[in-house]
Amino acid sequence: MLSNFKVVLVETSHPGNIGAVARAMKNMRMNQLRLVNPKFFPHADATARASGADDLLRDATIHNTLQSAIADCQIVLGASARDRTISWPSLTARQCADKWVSSAESTQNIALVFGRENSGLKNHELDLCHYLLRIPCNAEYSSLNLAAAVQVVCYELFVASGHEQVSRIGDRGEDPLATAEQMEAFYVHLQQTIADIGFLHPDRSKSIMRRLRRIFNRIQLDTKELDILRGILRFSQNHNTK
Amino acid sequence: MLSNFKVVLVETSHPGNIGAVARAMKNMRMNQLRLVNPKFFPHADATARASGADDLLRDATIHNTLQSAIADCQIVLGASARDRTISWPSLTARQCADKWVSSAESTQNIALVFGRENSGLKNHELDLCHYLLRIPCNAEYSSLNLAAAVQVVCYELFVASGHEQVSRIGDRGEDPLATAEQMEAFYVHLQQTIADIGFLHPDRSKSIMRRLRRIFNRIQLDTKELDILRGILRFSQNHNTK
Repeated sequence: MLSNFKVVLVETSHPGNIGAVARAMKNMRMNQLRLVNPKFFPHADATARASGADDLLRDATIHNTLQSAIADCQIVLGASARDRTISWPSLTARQCADKWVSSAESTQNIALVFGRENSGLKNHELDLCHYLLRIPCNAEYSSLNLAAAVQVVCYELFVASGHEQVSRIGDRGEDPLATAEQMEAFYVHLQQTIADIGFLHPDRSKSIMRRLRRIFNRIQLDTKELDILRGILRFSQNHNTK
Repeated sequence: MLSNFKVVLVETSHPGNIGAVARAMKNMRMNQLRLVNPKFFPHADATARASGADDLLRDATIHNTLQSAIADCQIVLGASARDRTISWPSLTARQCADKWVSSAESTQNIALVFGRENSGLKNHELDLCHYLLRIPCNAEYSSLNLAAAVQVVCYELFVASGHEQVSRIGDRGEDPLATAEQMEAFYVHLQQTIADIGFLHPDRSKSIMRRLRRIFNRIQLDTKELDILRGILRFSQNHNTK
């Protein structure tokens, strides 16, 4: 469940980033924000960047230590861009989502801990984490903006939660795609029409029709579009016989 | 290929957002940015938020029309948070990545068009798009910050590109996980030790050992950790016999 996840920001310098984090969280239906020693909070920049997610700022809890912010959490993940010299179990954002969203362990509280803008989490803070939380990115330019990192992680959790129905590829909404039978009727009509208008030379009939099929099959017509095209064919036929 | 994708920003109001977009792109190895009538550009806020991705700002092209910005693109996707009244083929960011990153059609240029901060893309601009590009999100609070939206889309493309080796769950780095044989030797040692120290009552031996197994199996020990634990057991045994 998404409500099991708590976003914990450690010693954030720029209050604007706290606001942007709140917005990123609310965009993905997350709402529990915990702040460890924020440099400035509350702050007008935080409210401005929250842009309608100020309820998350109002409900955010403030803590003096990371220990206090994660006290009720069974699982703690620490976001890290750097490769650490100590080897450490790590999960990508997607692995984290696959592992804990809608899993049997869903009664557990899970802390997602994000460090300072410039220096991340310190080693003694990582000692409190069970996993490093990693976002796959460009190894040569790996430091994401704080809110951008939170956005990606919350997005992965949201997608894994299945809250939103994902449309199938090519779905166009209300008009159903044409059936093969409807398409065949269209091709017959098309062939007749281009014969009627004198375009179709009998010798080349097969190869031309094959090319036309390749075109129209590729664009997956829906019934409404088919009606329009057949209307055009009818008008072409009538025009020719006038 | 990631270089086939062009990020196109239409009439961006806040130059800071342009900078944040450049950073989000570079984090994900994308580098082609096109700006249609930016309100202020170049601008100090853009450079500040780009935070080291100013090469993308320097190389960005400026266009008077969306048509000009997408002229060399075979496929055009328009980001949209709103449900449109016109039905439109749509793809999520992940579907887009699955469809075009490392696909056979990878010689095509693909434009990812993002609209104004407050009002998105106009209908006449969407008319130029082959697909709506959608980011799954909270239906009741669906407007992502511009750079956050670009971050999610570029992240999906990067993940699909397979540029980064994703670590397997529980991977801890250099020390290999303990084998079943090593774990059995550990359990024998553990049982002997807790018998030696008088903890293990013969009647409860089975149920206690089952519980201990459940604990140690769950945490997937590596060989180094096992050495440490067995060291502790040895010391416990020696202490008891003194």
